[in-house]
Amino acid sequence: MNAYEQLEAHYQKIDDLRHIGAITGWDESAMMPAGGGAARSRAMATLNVLVHDLTVAPQISDWLMACENLALSPLQMANVTVIQREHRQAACLTSDFVRAQTEAVMASEQQWRISRAENDWATIQPHLERVIGLSREEAAMRADAGGLGLYDAMLELYEPGVTSSQLDTLFEPLKTSLPPLTDAIIEHQAKTPCIPLGDHFEVGAQRELGLSVMKTLGFDFNHGRLDTSHHPFCGGVPEDVRLTTRYSETDFLQSLFGVIHETGHAMYEQGRPKDWLTQPVSQALSMGTHESQSLLMEMQAGRSTAFLTYVAPKMRAAFGRAGDDPAWSVDNLYRHITTVRRDFIRVDADEVTYPLHVILRYELEKALIDGSLTVADLPQAWHQKMTDYFGLSTAGNYQNGVMQDVHWPAGLIGYFPTYTLGALMAAQLFEAAKVSQPQTLQQIANGDFTSLLCWLRKHVHNRGSAVPVDQLMTDATGSPLTTDAFLSHLRARYLS
Amino acid sequence: MNAYEQLEAHYQKIDDLRHIGAITGWDESAMMPAGGGAARSRAMATLNVLVHDLTVAPQISDWLMACENLALSPLQMANVTVIQREHRQAACLTSDFVRAQTEAVMASEQQWRISRAENDWATIQPHLERVIGLSREEAAMRADAGGLGLYDAMLELYEPGVTSSQLDTLFEPLKTSLPPLTDAIIEHQAKTPCIPLGDHFEVGAQRELGLSVMKTLGFDFNHGRLDTSHHPFCGGVPEDVRLTTRYSETDFLQSLFGVIHETGHAMYEQGRPKDWLTQPVSQALSMGTHESQSLLMEMQAGRSTAFLTYVAPKMRAAFGRAGDDPAWSVDNLYRHITTVRRDFIRVDADEVTYPLHVILRYELEKALIDGSLTVADLPQAWHQKMTDYFGLSTAGNYQNGVMQDVHWPAGLIGYFPTYTLGALMAAQLFEAAKVSQPQTLQQIANGDFTSLLCWLRKHVHNRGSAVPVDQLMTDATGSPLTTDAFLSHLRARYLS
Repeated sequence: MNAYEQLEAHYQKIDDLRHIGAITGWDESAMMPAGGGAARSRAMATLNVLVHDLTVAPQISDWLMACENLALSPLQMANVTVIQREHRQAACLTSDFVRAQTEAVMASEQQWRISRAENDWATIQPHLERVIGLSREEAAMRADAGGLGLYDAMLELYEPGVTSSQLDTLFEPLKTSLPPLTDAIIEHQAKTPCIPLGDHFEVGAQRELGLSVMKTLGFDFNHGRLDTSHHPFCGGVPEDVRLTTRYSETDFLQSLFGVIHETGHAMYEQGRPKDWLTQPVSQALSMGTHESQSLLMEMQAGRSTAFLTYVAPKMRAAFGRAGDDPAWSVDNLYRHITTVRRDFIRVDADEVTYPLHVILRYELEKALIDGSLTVADLPQAWHQKMTDYFGLSTAGNYQNGVMQDVHWPAGLIGYFPTYTLGALMAAQLFEAAKVSQPQTLQQIANGDFTSLLCWLRKHVHNRGSAVPVDQLMTDATGSPLTTDAFLSHLRARYLS
Repeated sequence: MNAYEQLEAHYQKIDDLRHIGAITGWDESAMMPAGGGAARSRAMATLNVLVHDLTVAPQISDWLMACENLALSPLQMANVTVIQREHRQAACLTSDFVRAQTEAVMASEQQWRISRAENDWATIQPHLERVIGLSREEAAMRADAGGLGLYDAMLELYEPGVTSSQLDTLFEPLKTSLPPLTDAIIEHQAKTPCIPLGDHFEVGAQRELGLSVMKTLGFDFNHGRLDTSHHPFCGGVPEDVRLTTRYSETDFLQSLFGVIHETGHAMYEQGRPKDWLTQPVSQALSMGTHESQSLLMEMQAGRSTAFLTYVAPKMRAAFGRAGDDPAWSVDNLYRHITTVRRDFIRVDADEVTYPLHVILRYELEKALIDGSLTVADLPQAWHQKMTDYFGLSTAGNYQNGVMQDVHWPAGLIGYFPTYTLGALMAAQLFEAAKVSQPQTLQQIANGDFTSLLCWLRKHVHNRGSAVPVDQLMTDATGSPLTTDAFLSHLRARYLS
């Protein structure tokens, strides 16, 4: 085997262990009883250390150097580029650090599930201090190795090539224009209040409706499944994607659009380049790109009147409502799924206020990493920003305030901004898809997502990590990422 | 760290990876969509090779030798003994063999699920030829390393210390006495036929009944869960035991007693010595001992009139039957769960005919391993023995004949005899428990399994692998294993 082939074989082994880790991680969130937690944390730490050790194996540097003298195909070269970055990102951490961090994060996540339910900040604070402390150490080591700032070194894990100064440029127009836009929309929507849909929706019927919509969108059930978990997510591996959702008996729309969202993520994974699945070049390009696929399905396509036209009769059938019930008309259902409000919970937020939830977290986690904010002061800082941006107090309300997300207990610093990058990308991509295929909305109204999925497969999914985000966006839409399509979309949907 | 401590640390790492493997293995059977199979097989093979490589690490021999000069506690010494055996058993196989075997077995198991459903021998035969071929190679390598016969070298994996000549001695009285006993029981039972219970039992209600009975038996749901799978089993890890069952809408007793059976296995795992869980000495003593715990719950305790007295009202409540319905009386329900018949399926067999199902497999797999029987001739050999022992033809009936069990497609040669060893042990242990605690049956009639479970914890579960089976049996019951208690139990239950 030449050096490149040895590199591929080595990464196939790493991919095998990541497969095992992804399934066991899904299990930990969706299946594991609480008593299994301590042993599982130790086991996952051992696996993570093994993967880490394989990723930093010294022969990788030799193979990478030898590859420079080989005639490689463009995809092989792209694979080498991704491996180089992964190798550099891993090599700056010791095995002991990886073990300590994995164990701390798993204990913290497990405690978070309990503490959040009990609105108990005191029991999560020491875990969070430990995890954020380790993230600070991690950022320092990464910054040193990559020649980046502390926060940028963490951001690179989720959004390679993007820096916080670029984020600031993209976020500034949102921070300026979204508050007055929100005011205008709320005032506009107050003229036509929603008619309530009822207050009990059987979980079994919700699940069946979700499964049926997944099928319509194009999810391949031979390579994945839907389960329930505390915090909805999309895990597993491309050959076997594991989506989760959670059900509220009083609000079926929450779970349904959650399922559509995770299905968008899942179809990205299912669409990764088939012949390259064991290699890093087949991975999703970035977390922002991943989120663009979930938001394109949930926000752009899913919350369109076109999709509502298709799905409203199925909703009525699922819950036994009459076709002439005005509450269950397309118009009223559409008002329900496009209602804008200033509220506490990010994952339940509408697309207009969502970026402010993200910017709030982005500002706080930058301060956590540079040391200007302590974990002990976090609830007060959260409360202050919620008051400033949303006019909402979270004093004493940890559950729906600072403790609402798993990200910080899970040590994911630098992840939040990718949600908003994804929203911007989704708007720009969907606009381009509609220009390229003018029948898109009509097809969606017929429950036919085939053409849209083909377009996404070609322009996003099948590209893996072979090109940078800017090139992907330029190839697909004609320009790099801006806020234009997103802001036009909001004005068109909410103020026309 | 001294040599013993290094050995313990090394085995903690092995235990972590076995944990990951056990959960992923459970997932493969209970959760994974078929399309995930190929990638999963490769991933599991990589993990198995890693575990294998750790188990044969050359420093283990050095540590084991150095341990001879250390002052160790009795449990530490027992731990060293188990590690010595495991190291010897693993060291005779190469990593390449382990990978090839894991991949062959997983492909074969996945094909078996399809082929069995379609009664299609032709599609499973090549897989089985490959797997049995690898088992023959394995037996030769193991026999060579352990100084044992071909079959005994495989048997040692599941029942350390037992040889096929000892099995022959135990099985001979069963082979002789069970056919006439079966005749007598069938004639006896014909005098009082069962009244049918109905033909539709809602799966949700079956599941709730099963969960409630698991709780009564003493299963700890903080450390385990119940799911469904094609072939019921008990997997996972002691901290998180994963039981599965399958439901028939026309027969709730099958699933219920299946659940009781797997709960017996699960409580053995949950009762392993707490402070030693990461070490081999805490493992279940043997597969026969494991089966003794499932059969003690299912056959000895579960199918007693005492337990029926307790559970009959719960059965009636689960399926909405009246207390005065004669079909649902304790007497008639008891007749249902103790009906003896010569039938095709081992897992559905009563305790009287079950040993003959095992002896049939034991004889065939010995011939497969010594090369006197080919896989191609297996269906005919199966048919012949079913005709001889049961008077039943399986010509053309692969599904309920030679393809009914996952064991051979899974490469588990030497496993079947442990089912009957378990039945003999269960009878002898339950008899001893009743002598030691004369209130046992009365407590069971009240749904109170506490004392029985305490007795099992002390005499079986908490002992782990610290003593040989004969010593465990002598300590618990006053004598090594014989067929006496089992045959007395059958006569008392079925002919009195």
